[in-house]
Amino acid sequence: MGKVATADALRFMADCLKAVGAACKPAQQQAELLLQADRLGHPSHGLNRLEYYVNDILSGACLPNNQPKVLKESPSTAWVDANNVLGATSSHFAMDIAVNKAKETGVGWVSVKGSNHFGIAGWWAQKAADKGLIGMAFTNTSPLLAPTRSKQSALGTNPLAVVAPADNGETFYLDMATTAVAVGKIEMQLRKGEPIPNGWAQGPDGKETNDAALAFETQCLMPLGGGESTSGYKGFGLAAMVELFCGVLSGSFYGHHIRSWSHKGDGGPANLGHCFVAIDPESFAPGFSTRLADCITHWRSLEPTDPNLPVLAPGDKEKNHAQKTDRDGTVTYLEQQLHTSAALAKKLKVNPMKVLAD
Amino acid sequence: MGKVATADALRFMADCLKAVGAACKPAQQQAELLLQADRLGHPSHGLNRLEYYVNDILSGACLPNNQPKVLKESPSTAWVDANNVLGATSSHFAMDIAVNKAKETGVGWVSVKGSNHFGIAGWWAQKAADKGLIGMAFTNTSPLLAPTRSKQSALGTNPLAVVAPADNGETFYLDMATTAVAVGKIEMQLRKGEPIPNGWAQGPDGKETNDAALAFETQCLMPLGGGESTSGYKGFGLAAMVELFCGVLSGSFYGHHIRSWSHKGDGGPANLGHCFVAIDPESFAPGFSTRLADCITHWRSLEPTDPNLPVLAPGDKEKNHAQKTDRDGTVTYLEQQLHTSAALAKKLKVNPMKVLAD
Repeated sequence: MGKVATADALRFMADCLKAVGAACKPAQQQAELLLQADRLGHPSHGLNRLEYYVNDILSGACLPNNQPKVLKESPSTAWVDANNVLGATSSHFAMDIAVNKAKETGVGWVSVKGSNHFGIAGWWAQKAADKGLIGMAFTNTSPLLAPTRSKQSALGTNPLAVVAPADNGETFYLDMATTAVAVGKIEMQLRKGEPIPNGWAQGPDGKETNDAALAFETQCLMPLGGGESTSGYKGFGLAAMVELFCGVLSGSFYGHHIRSWSHKGDGGPANLGHCFVAIDPESFAPGFSTRLADCITHWRSLEPTDPNLPVLAPGDKEKNHAQKTDRDGTVTYLEQQLHTSAALAKKLKVNPMKVLAD
Repeated sequence: MGKVATADALRFMADCLKAVGAACKPAQQQAELLLQADRLGHPSHGLNRLEYYVNDILSGACLPNNQPKVLKESPSTAWVDANNVLGATSSHFAMDIAVNKAKETGVGWVSVKGSNHFGIAGWWAQKAADKGLIGMAFTNTSPLLAPTRSKQSALGTNPLAVVAPADNGETFYLDMATTAVAVGKIEMQLRKGEPIPNGWAQGPDGKETNDAALAFETQCLMPLGGGESTSGYKGFGLAAMVELFCGVLSGSFYGHHIRSWSHKGDGGPANLGHCFVAIDPESFAPGFSTRLADCITHWRSLEPTDPNLPVLAPGDKEKNHAQKTDRDGTVTYLEQQLHTSAALAKKLKVNPMKVLAD
């Protein structure tokens, strides 16, 4: 583990993207997106993904200096072609449209095709919440989730995010994959030499497994809810709903047509689909943010089953992690990530991140 | 078990509601809603609920002949006061507005307060799908779900439904409670004398229980995903999201402020909140229904882990049940339901349902 000043991590990530040809603005926006994941305590979507984006630019699968464009528009909707830009570029473009439409008509619903990974979904929903709106963001991803009863995967981890502003500086923040867990959690159990719980992943025979190594190798996650007896088909249904809003609505690749997850950028353009929604609570009953704050406060005040584990409102974990990061002014990275980043710095002839003494 | 002609079941349910004062149209619409649940194989939301609605009318908690009204409107949104009408009345009113707005602006988003139980959420989403749109419906309900780590409940089973039309007469149909299971499933295990799986429900000590009797008595369900290690906080987050769209947005009762579930109608007006959304796929990429049908076909064609259990697309179970009901022209009810209905017929001086010989 090693600490890096947040400003230095941001600078490094933007520098790497610029080194492979991205202009200042898209590089900066993509770096901010990655840093936010590290800041909120979701390292799988942070610096960890940088080389993936770099490789996609190097291979020509991602064209960071293209411009997204609107293909079709109605008072409350837009259909956008991202033109293979970085996920942050297309997502800023699309969510700005959704926000403007919500301010005019009450709702903005924007569907995007031809895009690349957009990092943490919550960052995009938060963008609308920062304007006083309810924000939602969805994306499809490479196949990893096995539908209930299926031996193989057919959908991605297909995350959804809903973020809304409440009184007293509170925020409702939900950002979740529709699989039970992300692959990163299996990897963590593997490193600790511990088994995985029921309901996380399948082995190559299609059966639920507790073997972390087998699960990591198979890369076939179970939907939220796990097996059929615990309603895993609901998680499958949610992943399918996200695909309906993303690939099916936008005409991007979808489901089983999406390229496999590859670190090398050799799968051709990702052509992912996203969906961005903004809703103006002012269009409905007065007092939205007060009632929302009341809910958040109530959930936190519930008597916990284990006195040492207080009940958390959606987003409390992320909020606590962000506060610590901001207080320290540093992000903590695993040794492996620091090594990879140092090697990347060398390869791209970019100033490496400075690892701070403890 | 006994069979009743579907037309007779519909007639009986409408007659009972009329007998306690509902006008023809609201009685008929509520009866259609209940019959649809029985038709799709969700008997908990069908005839089983009739007496609950009857009692709410008798107590004055529900005023079936009121008119819902629009309190606020923008091009894509409406805020509706249901004025304590039956759930079917307010839901038809609100979804009609959402559909019309979607046809004009691409999206319609309608929030309802002052309502009563609206039956199966899928029926309302289907209403939009029947017009070629993507339909969504959400409702809050009486507290039954314990947030992750909490000893007590704070949210309802808060269902969400998404229905969309696909080519070849196919439909994407997702209608799910955000709890792992409904109370009815626990009751079924109890009757069979079998334990319940992990992840369904808590005992009075706040801990996961396998004891069906204890779980049924405690009435404290776990969210979709079960315990914390299997990401139950995602199911809690989804239930909270549904509440955000329903009570928090509409200004109805919400979360812990909603009356307890009672069969007797003695809790005063329910003042529930719903949310109805319609989205016009024509506003986005051409070919929506073709891509959706491709997904549905692909999911069904996946190799199953158990050759005897084919992979189902969301809604296949309901579709199969409806086809059987329509073919037979009859609905099958449990003895207990037939007895209760016969007693209700006597009490309300309504022609009883005719139970058919096998």
